Amino acid sequence: MTSSPLVVGLGDRSYPIHIGDGLLDREDLLAPHVAGRRSFVVTNPTIAPRYAGRLEASLSRAGAMTSRIEIADGEAHKDWRTLDGVFTALLGAGADRRSLVVALGGGVVGDLAGFAAATYQRGIDFIQVPTTLLAQVDSSVGGKTAINHPLGKNMVGAFHQPLAVIADTGTLASLPGREFAAGLAEVVKYGAIRDLAFFEWLEARMDDLKARREDALSYAIRRSCELKAEIVALDEREAGVRALLNLGHTFGHAIETLEGYGSWLHGEAVAAGMVLAARFSERHRRLAPGSADRLARLLARADLPVVPPRLATDRWLTAMGRDKKNEGGRITLVLMDAIGQAVIEKAAPVPAIEALLGDA
Amino acid sequence: MTSSPLVVGLGDRSYPIHIGDGLLDREDLLAPHVAGRRSFVVTNPTIAPRYAGRLEASLSRAGAMTSRIEIADGEAHKDWRTLDGVFTALLGAGADRRSLVVALGGGVVGDLAGFAAATYQRGIDFIQVPTTLLAQVDSSVGGKTAINHPLGKNMVGAFHQPLAVIADTGTLASLPGREFAAGLAEVVKYGAIRDLAFFEWLEARMDDLKARREDALSYAIRRSCELKAEIVALDEREAGVRALLNLGHTFGHAIETLEGYGSWLHGEAVAAGMVLAARFSERHRRLAPGSADRLARLLARADLPVVPPRLATDRWLTAMGRDKKNEGGRITLVLMDAIGQAVIEKAAPVPAIEALLGDA
Repeated sequence: MTSSPLVVGLGDRSYPIHIGDGLLDREDLLAPHVAGRRSFVVTNPTIAPRYAGRLEASLSRAGAMTSRIEIADGEAHKDWRTLDGVFTALLGAGADRRSLVVALGGGVVGDLAGFAAATYQRGIDFIQVPTTLLAQVDSSVGGKTAINHPLGKNMVGAFHQPLAVIADTGTLASLPGREFAAGLAEVVKYGAIRDLAFFEWLEARMDDLKARREDALSYAIRRSCELKAEIVALDEREAGVRALLNLGHTFGHAIETLEGYGSWLHGEAVAAGMVLAARFSERHRRLAPGSADRLARLLARADLPVVPPRLATDRWLTAMGRDKKNEGGRITLVLMDAIGQAVIEKAAPVPAIEALLGDA
Repeated sequence: MTSSPLVVGLGDRSYPIHIGDGLLDREDLLAPHVAGRRSFVVTNPTIAPRYAGRLEASLSRAGAMTSRIEIADGEAHKDWRTLDGVFTALLGAGADRRSLVVALGGGVVGDLAGFAAATYQRGIDFIQVPTTLLAQVDSSVGGKTAINHPLGKNMVGAFHQPLAVIADTGTLASLPGREFAAGLAEVVKYGAIRDLAFFEWLEARMDDLKARREDALSYAIRRSCELKAEIVALDEREAGVRALLNLGHTFGHAIETLEGYGSWLHGEAVAAGMVLAARFSERHRRLAPGSADRLARLLARADLPVVPPRLATDRWLTAMGRDKKNEGGRITLVLMDAIGQAVIEKAAPVPAIEALLGDA
């Protein structure tokens, strides 16, 4: 079922990440956190019919009272209106500071439900139960919560660590191909930023991953979470090294903002963004020639886009100028000195970025 | 001008509270926090013409770039719509994670601007520059930030400590009488919950306070902040003793919610709420007979209401049932065993509350 959990080491806010097939049914993983408490499962109409009943049954066996709050599906709904609906439901049901939120779904559900938990009555507990590959390897781990603003993605949010992450790999069987591929983009990212051996393993096993073979999938998720947990423990609030996790994201967020949330999936935008970052790194850092193509080949095998949309350069720059990593009007980029070795560039020269985008 | 600052002791999040006449002009108090940074002064159209120019000049002399964000005046605007306007202004101006918010105004400005800082790009720094008595003695200290929800006051928020609190007592000269009185309610509260000697001092000096005599005012503000800082340092996130600061607030929040935000000022509702809590305490705790009347007399001398509005008992209970201090459907009240000695009652018997409200 599951081996011993990974732990995100954050002192008294440390928490376990459980990964394995069938974990939705494991009340023993929930009981330490929920016994005697009211739990509010936040999920969407796509996920609910498949998994909410099983999770709620486990919560009940673990001694929690459960209610369900459904939110609209999709990145376009990761906004204040949806968040306010969650607050209204919590208040209407009389949720108090001992109540907890259980986020059941993908990145949108986790980010939004997590932010609801971070701010409802100035903060209540929550548990992440990610059901997409992207959420299992990335967004459910590390405590970043947020909603989007019309002027920028994830611009309103909080750092709020969950009590636990429970990743049931069985839920990935029903994931649409495009969303599965979007999750693989973040998996590839971990290899690219910090672990050449893992990158090579991905090159060797991409076909098994695409076939969703349980052994390959479990290893890829576990290794991704290990790498993320390591980085988050070093730098919870992104004062430094954590920004490496944003490889491809400055370009990617601009794509998402300019194309409208939801038309490009986050992982797709990150894939195209990583290739841009790699091409920039070949020109202006030590990244060996051919590395960007090698990265693009692996991403393309995962059925991901590796060429950005055609957008006017000034629109790119405006959208990139709003990235949270920026300071003082300069553009911060995560670049690569090698596959497996990303670096933070605090003041990337704007003319060089313009040249890159002009060629893209 | 100012004596040595009080300090709110919270480890690496400790911060000074400066209290004195003319501090708006003291760039030396700002410089350690703002030099070389972009500052966004959040204020309202009532405060701005009087004080924003002076504060911005001080910020400039302290080495900060300054912009101004005006929000609508009044508790009725402490909502998502106003908050979103602040986010839009920050994003439109390209505010980054090194930018900081300076809240110039009363409790509404401080709560809302503080919550904007707590959640903009997952949290940026802020400074409190309170200009009302209520904000100087209470809401600017302790890191509670929030907006209201139609179903309850301060239901959405965060704990986010400021870098500093700068309370210029000179700004109180222009405060309307009703708002000044509302601030005195919180001053009286500190005496009632924790400091009999201070309560007696207030009985002796109430006329001087109402005349806004500088020496009386400075002492009352300083002593109030000392008492609050002490409690906040013991219990930053209101797991225990900090709840004492809510004497009168469970009843008071219900009054505000039921009467519509803004028709009763917060301090007015708290005054009437404290008297209710004291009457309840005479009936069901050790509070000596006559104490509630003594409290009511002092509050009435401050021109505060000491009788609650006539409301149906079931509406009272519903509104009180949404208080953040509640757990598991029981109603938590802050009560008094003596003047200067408040206590937390975790499960106040509902029939006794009904009887009290029926008699009120």
